[in-house]
Amino acid sequence: MTNDRFLRALKREPVDCTPVWIMRQAGRYLPEYRATRARAGSFVNLCKTPELACEVTLQPITRYPLDAAILFSDILTIPDAMGLGLSVEEGIGPRFARPLRTRADIESLSVPDPETDLRYVMEAVRLIRRELHERVPLIGFAGSPWTLACYMIEGQGSDNFARAKALAWDDAATMHRLLDVVARSVAGYLAAQAAAGAQALMIFDTWGGLLAPEMFDEFSLRYLAQIVQSLKLDNAAKDVPVIVFSKGANSHLEQLADTGCAALGLDWTIGLGNARMRVGDSVALQGNLDPAVLKASPAAIRHEVERALHSFGPHPGHVFNLGHGITPDVDPERLAVLIDAVHELSAK
Amino acid sequence: MTNDRFLRALKREPVDCTPVWIMRQAGRYLPEYRATRARAGSFVNLCKTPELACEVTLQPITRYPLDAAILFSDILTIPDAMGLGLSVEEGIGPRFARPLRTRADIESLSVPDPETDLRYVMEAVRLIRRELHERVPLIGFAGSPWTLACYMIEGQGSDNFARAKALAWDDAATMHRLLDVVARSVAGYLAAQAAAGAQALMIFDTWGGLLAPEMFDEFSLRYLAQIVQSLKLDNAAKDVPVIVFSKGANSHLEQLADTGCAALGLDWTIGLGNARMRVGDSVALQGNLDPAVLKASPAAIRHEVERALHSFGPHPGHVFNLGHGITPDVDPERLAVLIDAVHELSAK
Repeated sequence: MTNDRFLRALKREPVDCTPVWIMRQAGRYLPEYRATRARAGSFVNLCKTPELACEVTLQPITRYPLDAAILFSDILTIPDAMGLGLSVEEGIGPRFARPLRTRADIESLSVPDPETDLRYVMEAVRLIRRELHERVPLIGFAGSPWTLACYMIEGQGSDNFARAKALAWDDAATMHRLLDVVARSVAGYLAAQAAAGAQALMIFDTWGGLLAPEMFDEFSLRYLAQIVQSLKLDNAAKDVPVIVFSKGANSHLEQLADTGCAALGLDWTIGLGNARMRVGDSVALQGNLDPAVLKASPAAIRHEVERALHSFGPHPGHVFNLGHGITPDVDPERLAVLIDAVHELSAK
Repeated sequence: MTNDRFLRALKREPVDCTPVWIMRQAGRYLPEYRATRARAGSFVNLCKTPELACEVTLQPITRYPLDAAILFSDILTIPDAMGLGLSVEEGIGPRFARPLRTRADIESLSVPDPETDLRYVMEAVRLIRRELHERVPLIGFAGSPWTLACYMIEGQGSDNFARAKALAWDDAATMHRLLDVVARSVAGYLAAQAAAGAQALMIFDTWGGLLAPEMFDEFSLRYLAQIVQSLKLDNAAKDVPVIVFSKGANSHLEQLADTGCAALGLDWTIGLGNARMRVGDSVALQGNLDPAVLKASPAAIRHEVERALHSFGPHPGHVFNLGHGITPDVDPERLAVLIDAVHELSAK
C-alpha cells in the first residue's frame, strides 16, 4: 500500500500526518461525477454498473490527495436485493416500489446472497481495487439495520419515520424479526465486500439519532453490535477494521465503542477532545467538521480544521472527515483547501 | 386561576397530577383548526387576525383537559415586523421576500416596537386572556436569536442553514450585530407579551442543535442568557417563568439551566431521569415524548407515558409535553389518550 495512513490511524498507530477522506467524496459537487451520472441515466443504474461505480469512486482520488477511497454505492442496495424495488429520484430521494406494509411482508424476507443478488457491488469492489493499484485503501459500507428498516417500512425518506417507530412500539417482536434478518444480511454483505477486497468497512446508522435512549439501545445499538461480532467470526472480515457511525447518537458513544468496532464516526455536534476523553483508548475516531464549513471562506476552513486537530490533540487514532456528507452546492476548490489544511497542519 | 398546575410545576411546587400541554396543540391535526385556517385564507393572516388567533388558541382547550394554552402565532413575526416580508406556504414552509443578503441589510435593522409593529400579537394575547376566563394559564413565546437569524439569512428553511453558519465563520462581528438586535427585539417582544397577559414565556431555539459546541456557546446560548436576564429586569416580566427549549442541544443542558430560566424544554433523545440528574434542582423540565408515539396504538401511548413519568420520578417540577410539535397526521383521539394517561398515571 503506497499510502496506509488511514489504516494505521484506524489501528491507532502513529502517522506522518492525519489521514482524511470525505463522506460522499464521490458526489454531485464534482462536475466529473455529474457527467458520469448523466451517462448512467439514473442513480440506481450508476450503482448497478461496476465500471461506472468504479469510475466515480476514483474521481475524487484522482483530483485530491485523499487517504482513502470509498465504494460508490447506496445503503439501500440490500432492501433492493430483498425485492423492495429501489428507485432514487434527484431532489426527492429514495423510494421503494414495494415497502413493507404487513407482518407477512416482513416474515417473507430472506437474507440475500451477496455474490449472486448483489453481484454488481462485489464486481465494483474487485474492479476498484484493481484500478486503485494500491494507492489508497478502499472502504466498503452498508446501512445499519435500524436505518434500513426505517426506509423499508416507510417506503421513502421521512422527518421522523413515525411508521417504523410505531411498529417498534406496537409489535416489537415483528420489528425484531425484521431487524434480525436485515442484520444478518448486512453482516453477510460486509463480509462479502471484505472478501472482494474492501480494506475497511463502515456502517451508517443515519437514523439512530431519531430514537429515544431505550429505543436506541433496543432497536439500533443491539444490531450494530450483532454485525460487528458476526464480522469478527468471518475469515475474510475478521481483521478488517469496522467504523460505526451513528449520527446524532452522541449520548451513546461509550456503548457504541463497546460494540467491538475499530472506530466511531462522529457528527459535528460533539467536540473531538470531549469524545476522545469519553471513549478513551478503545477506538479511533473519525470526523467531524460541520459540512457547512465548506461554504465558508478558505481562511475560515483552515481555521476550523486547525481547531478540530487541536481539539483531538496529539494522540494516535484520528481520521479526519466531515460530520456528514459533503453537499452538492460546494465548490470543489474549497474541499482542496480543507484536505491540504488537514495534511499540512497535522504534520507540524 | 381555576387550574394552576402548570405554573406550580414551573415553580417546582407540588401538584395533584402532572400538568400537560402539547407543542402545536392548536394545529393542523384538528379539523376545527383546519376550518378556521381555511376561513383565514393564509397562515400569516391567521396569525395577524387577533380574533382568529384567539379562536384557534382556544380550540384544543375546549376539546381536551389541557393544563395550559399557548398563543397561536409564529416565531417569525419579529423578522416580519423588521421588514423582511413573511409568507408561509403549506407543505413548503416559511419564506422571506427580503432576506438578509449584505452587511448593510443587517446594519439597517432596528428593534420593532411590540405595541405598534406587533400590535396584532399583543391584541391576541389580551383577547385570549379574556376568553380563557382564568381556566388555564396562557404561554407566550418567541424564537431564539440564532433560530431567527438562520431564517433571516437563509430566507427560508434549510437542512443545515449553511449560509447563516458561513456568516458566523466569515464575519463573526456582523453575525453578533444581527444576533444582538434580534435578542433585544425578542426580549422586548416577550416583555410586551407578559405585560399584555402572558403568564409564562417560552423561547424556541429550534436550530441551536445544528451548531458545533463552541458555535452553540457563542451564537446561541449567549443570546438566550441575554434575553432571560433582560426579562428579569422588566417590571411586567420579572416574575413570569421562562421556558428555554433548545432542540438537539442536550449536551448543553447544564449551561442552558444556568441562563436563569425556570424550565428547560427537552426533546425525546434524552431520558427525563438523566436530564433531571444533570440539572438537579435548578430548573423544572418540560417534555419529552417522541411525537411519533401518537402514531402508535392507545396501549403503546399509555405505556410510553408511564415510562416517561417513571423516568422523571416522584419529584416536583415536571410539565408533560412532547419532545417536538404534534404532527398534522395525528388522529385527535390519540392525543386524548395521551393527556388522560398523563393525568391518571401521575395522580397515583
